[in-house]
Amino acid sequence: MSSSYGENLKLTIFGQSHSPAIGMTLEGIPAGNSIDMEALQKFMTRRAPGGASWSTPRKEADLPEFLGGLVGDTTCGAPIAAIIRNTNTRSADYDELKRVPRPGHADLTAEIKYFGFQDANGGGHFSGRLTAPMCIAGGICRQLLAKEGISVMARVLSVGDVSDNGELTEPLDDKLFPVVNEEQGLKMKELIDRVRSESDSVGGVVECVVTGLPAGIGDPMFDGMENRIAGIMFGIPAVKGLEFGAGFAYAQMRGSESNDPFRIRDGRIVTETNNAGGILGGITNGMPLIFRAAFKPTPSIAREQNSVDMKSKKDESLIVKGRHDPCIVVRAVPVVEAAASIACYDAVLGRRKETNYEK
Amino acid sequence: MSSSYGENLKLTIFGQSHSPAIGMTLEGIPAGNSIDMEALQKFMTRRAPGGASWSTPRKEADLPEFLGGLVGDTTCGAPIAAIIRNTNTRSADYDELKRVPRPGHADLTAEIKYFGFQDANGGGHFSGRLTAPMCIAGGICRQLLAKEGISVMARVLSVGDVSDNGELTEPLDDKLFPVVNEEQGLKMKELIDRVRSESDSVGGVVECVVTGLPAGIGDPMFDGMENRIAGIMFGIPAVKGLEFGAGFAYAQMRGSESNDPFRIRDGRIVTETNNAGGILGGITNGMPLIFRAAFKPTPSIAREQNSVDMKSKKDESLIVKGRHDPCIVVRAVPVVEAAASIACYDAVLGRRKETNYEK
Amino acid sequence: MSSSYGENLKLTIFGQSHSPAIGMTLEGIPAGNSIDMEALQKFMTRRAPGGASWSTPRKEADLPEFLGGLVGDTTCGAPIAAIIRNTNTRSADYDELKRVPRPGHADLTAEIKYFGFQDANGGGHFSGRLTAPMCIAGGICRQLLAKEGISVMARVLSVGDVSDNGELTEPLDDKLFPVVNEEQGLKMKELIDRVRSESDSVGGVVECVVTGLPAGIGDPMFDGMENRIAGIMFGIPAVKGLEFGAGFAYAQMRGSESNDPFRIRDGRIVTETNNAGGILGGITNGMPLIFRAAFKPTPSIAREQNSVDMKSKKDESLIVKGRHDPCIVVRAVPVVEAAASIACYDAVLGRRKETNYEK
Amino acid sequence: MSSSYGENLKLTIFGQSHSPAIGMTLEGIPAGNSIDMEALQKFMTRRAPGGASWSTPRKEADLPEFLGGLVGDTTCGAPIAAIIRNTNTRSADYDELKRVPRPGHADLTAEIKYFGFQDANGGGHFSGRLTAPMCIAGGICRQLLAKEGISVMARVLSVGDVSDNGELTEPLDDKLFPVVNEEQGLKMKELIDRVRSESDSVGGVVECVVTGLPAGIGDPMFDGMENRIAGIMFGIPAVKGLEFGAGFAYAQMRGSESNDPFRIRDGRIVTETNNAGGILGGITNGMPLIFRAAFKPTPSIAREQNSVDMKSKKDESLIVKGRHDPCIVVRAVPVVEAAASIACYDAVLGRRKETNYEK
Repeated sequence: MSSSYGENLKLTIFGQSHSPAIGMTLEGIPAGNSIDMEALQKFMTRRAPGGASWSTPRKEADLPEFLGGLVGDTTCGAPIAAIIRNTNTRSADYDELKRVPRPGHADLTAEIKYFGFQDANGGGHFSGRLTAPMCIAGGICRQLLAKEGISVMARVLSVGDVSDNGELTEPLDDKLFPVVNEEQGLKMKELIDRVRSESDSVGGVVECVVTGLPAGIGDPMFDGMENRIAGIMFGIPAVKGLEFGAGFAYAQMRGSESNDPFRIRDGRIVTETNNAGGILGGITNGMPLIFRAAFKPTPSIAREQNSVDMKSKKDESLIVKGRHDPCIVVRAVPVVEAAASIACYDAVLGRRKETNYEK
Repeated sequence: MSSSYGENLKLTIFGQSHSPAIGMTLEGIPAGNSIDMEALQKFMTRRAPGGASWSTPRKEADLPEFLGGLVGDTTCGAPIAAIIRNTNTRSADYDELKRVPRPGHADLTAEIKYFGFQDANGGGHFSGRLTAPMCIAGGICRQLLAKEGISVMARVLSVGDVSDNGELTEPLDDKLFPVVNEEQGLKMKELIDRVRSESDSVGGVVECVVTGLPAGIGDPMFDGMENRIAGIMFGIPAVKGLEFGAGFAYAQMRGSESNDPFRIRDGRIVTETNNAGGILGGITNGMPLIFRAAFKPTPSIAREQNSVDMKSKKDESLIVKGRHDPCIVVRAVPVVEAAASIACYDAVLGRRKETNYEK
Repeated sequence: MSSSYGENLKLTIFGQSHSPAIGMTLEGIPAGNSIDMEALQKFMTRRAPGGASWSTPRKEADLPEFLGGLVGDTTCGAPIAAIIRNTNTRSADYDELKRVPRPGHADLTAEIKYFGFQDANGGGHFSGRLTAPMCIAGGICRQLLAKEGISVMARVLSVGDVSDNGELTEPLDDKLFPVVNEEQGLKMKELIDRVRSESDSVGGVVECVVTGLPAGIGDPMFDGMENRIAGIMFGIPAVKGLEFGAGFAYAQMRGSESNDPFRIRDGRIVTETNNAGGILGGITNGMPLIFRAAFKPTPSIAREQNSVDMKSKKDESLIVKGRHDPCIVVRAVPVVEAAASIACYDAVLGRRKETNYEK
Repeated sequence: MSSSYGENLKLTIFGQSHSPAIGMTLEGIPAGNSIDMEALQKFMTRRAPGGASWSTPRKEADLPEFLGGLVGDTTCGAPIAAIIRNTNTRSADYDELKRVPRPGHADLTAEIKYFGFQDANGGGHFSGRLTAPMCIAGGICRQLLAKEGISVMARVLSVGDVSDNGELTEPLDDKLFPVVNEEQGLKMKELIDRVRSESDSVGGVVECVVTGLPAGIGDPMFDGMENRIAGIMFGIPAVKGLEFGAGFAYAQMRGSESNDPFRIRDGRIVTETNNAGGILGGITNGMPLIFRAAFKPTPSIAREQNSVDMKSKKDESLIVKGRHDPCIVVRAVPVVEAAASIACYDAVLGRRKETNYEK
């Protein structure tokens, strides 16, 4: 179903932007795992809306309240359930959206799909705010993966035409602006500031790397690592493209350059290059799993835009009010890590069923 | 599960490249739909392996045998089941692959995942041959969508650095080399010939357009049209990237240019541009649904490549024998259409559950 | 997954008996359905723990708080989410249960399954308290079915060796002790009082009847109405048997008496008898759907019982403390109605996908 | 979906009674398990239609052809696929059934559900013949369970009013009429002969016992062993009741007699009685898992019965032609074993995911 994800885990996300609360249930986490609540909170904070710049994240970061699934901070086998209260549940600003939809948003499609009964306030169930419960689940999975030596890390790879460079080899949790090359990060920030001053927004790319995954994780065909990751990644609002390893660059390559030759290094089988992004036939090969997600520019911009009156079927125009991130990509970094962690931990659990071959 | 896809439909694919047969079951097709078997066979033929050039497709195209689900040619409500016999089931050539894996193939990951018990012959369950049963299911769904005025069409968008141009507005079923601009197609063919003569292979991009989809199809979050399409598209071997509408180009855009303004045209709500690829919030908006899939070059190339001996853990080299398509992208076009048709028809069926609002 | 149910709906239940809250999410309810909150609350009250007799139900009945899925009292298409706070979350009484398990309870199996990390307090995730969120979901589905002319009703069919008689033809929502024959109900109450005075408990049977279901609901094989209902009914703690129509009595019948002959009455096809309980081949035939669920006696009895020390592996004895219902069957009646409503509404929604045959 | 079962395994059954073939796919069996094909065939033979008495089973027992999932006789990780050709695919006899439905059969409900497009021949997808592919899957799972010391065994517990007695402690694979007390079996056979001579049929009960299951298998709530077994057992045509352990007898018991006291025996925790049928809270407790399924009498009887003309909506009568088992219960014994084996092996696989607690 639409708000649930997973095969060996089952994540269910609920709530709307302005409903009393948003939340999630996460079933399938084995009992006896203690959650580091402080680390989880820190992880959540990376996603939380910040102030005018990235140096001063808002103090009042979303605080999950756990309703079930734990004894103290340790999983007990029952589904983990947590909610975050919505403090801002005014709906006045949004009545207009049921008449004149914002371009690039789901206002129109929600109106049609739900026959006008949708919760339009703050984007309802389509709001980026719903990535907060995903971060609760993902933050937990990321901790559990880390215990098995698996690191899930992401970065801002590009904002508009400014790209990071250098290789992502370790988590950037401590960076407010998660890039490898800080100089490039500075340029990205300048671009974002400029775009904001122009009442505009800008898109970008997030790159994610998962190291430490043993070979043999994932399944053929529709449960390959690509399918699993895509299944959750396109659940993040604004993601419109996804590529693994060389991805779209593969399309311009020759097999003689794109094939990753195998070699033995320190007794282990590795590949000399990693165009495959660590995945062959849907299954991990032991190399770092690498993917990139393209984010469209935040559709909320403070400019007059063409739209229509859905009731009277007449052309209209609108200006979206309120303050909005001019570039969602920075705050999306932990969300991508969360989603990747959920997908990977689900696949890791699935692998455990496959071990009773005859010796 | 790994070999099954769908929520309102359930497609299950089985068989290996060299097992007695490959096949599929497809559950959920409403009773009373007649299948045009001739059209289905013609569709299957587009995927079937051709000769040395694209002008003379092999006569002996895969012929599905239907085992259940039909009375005559009409669906009866029971799962549709069909198989295709594998005539070539020699296994001699492939024994070596269990020792020395082919770079870019799933030989290594299958060996690890299945503890050496995998069926390595012809790529086993990972073979591109498994796209044939997907085409049976997809061909059926494509026919059913057509009855509702929905057209699913794809083309070769690029091979290596040669791109098609022009807009894809109607199915190219009758073209052996499905491009809009035949001149560009000629250049692609030349490139493929050159690559083959160099014992190499080349990647490419397939673009798919679905027209006639009503607004309101698809679901929020994890069952959006993007998630659904990605879930099946990454089940096609060699697909390593996927983008919807503007896709990765979104990352370099401003919101003021990427937002698709709404307008009223002939009493209907349309968008002036279609960067969203017909999808907002995971749900169709009535505009053409557009996506592109990046295919990596065929990993089988007739050149010596570096590999390893998986048993002795020593460096090795190998030359892949046999004849292989130097560019899989052309034959992938109907497979992409098949996959998209399955995903779209599943979503169309799901939409029917949502209609009992109070009037 | 274990705490989720449904194919066209998706119910997820979370929380433990003594965790901060219990709750549920329910996805798939079409948008635009208004919920009668007063009726829902009344329905919940029927399940809520009463006082010493059935005449004075506790005032402080569980009050669900809706967190998402509604705009006002109307469904908006997003998952419905609701919680009930646990006011009694003391855990002191239950520490002992992790050492000496209560016979008939899940204490032992939870200890083994969760490696000792289970939440043992109040029965944790296995507590009958988890039927409260099932009643939220079921109460909603029951209202929606009623709008389509489908009535879901249940009664106490027997307590120990005392049986109700007469046919169940209309809902008994207004009866504190839901039986058709009040005289038999009186005898049941007397039996329950006697059993309580003996510090014992007693089992019973709940019968459920669903009228107004059109023919054609349900699916063959693993999605038959029996499978669907069984799949949720055995999720109610203490249910150990289930039969449809004549059920186990069928085993002693001849075909010539058990087959339900078809007849035309008022232009409609009916059956003269209803041994099939309204289901043929898993699919409704338009007659009332009838099933019975056997409940075991409440395992919590205030008598000394044989048990073991799970740590030291020695024989032990224990006396279960606290007050417990001597007969769960009365409060189970709305729970059975809730479960049946969820199963039926799910099947009703599924039926909608099957209507595009060629005319 | 309707023809698929399983969470960690995925069984899909296809075909109709008179379609070219029936078959199954079974996904999730770990690679490297060799199948004893002779034993599987012997298992299948127990279900195959026999002659006039039970002493001479038909020689031409259904022979599955494996199409995928095996290398030699060893599982390779890909879905196992097998078919059985239908040799009798005449349809003439059954045309009448689309007009005048057989009482007790699915003819009427299939007509309504599939708008008259169903495959009515031989019962179509509703035929008992579809239990043959279930036996392929179940026979494989039963072998794999046996390797882990888990025995799945069933018997005829009763036919009409004649009951077997004695405890079922070992498989009865070698008995043509699987009862513990042969004398009672003789009486059952006499009853069946008498019923047949009266052109009638008779119902019965099959009991199934699973020994060797470790404690901790199964999950709470909707994935309990009862739910899992019910989910597949009601997929066997003619099953209308199911009970675990004391089952319906529980309803007449006191807690003081129904609770199974725990004891230490040989260092293991056991229960003195086994009213729970080896299941507490949905999870195995290490005692034998016991359940009973009630089968209705074969609805096909060679007597005139009341029915209706579905087109003209008029009363009619019909005599079902052809030869039919007067008591399906004997041949149902291996089918129940098959279904139980699938459910148990699925649960056993699921248990493997739960072992990474912190030591």
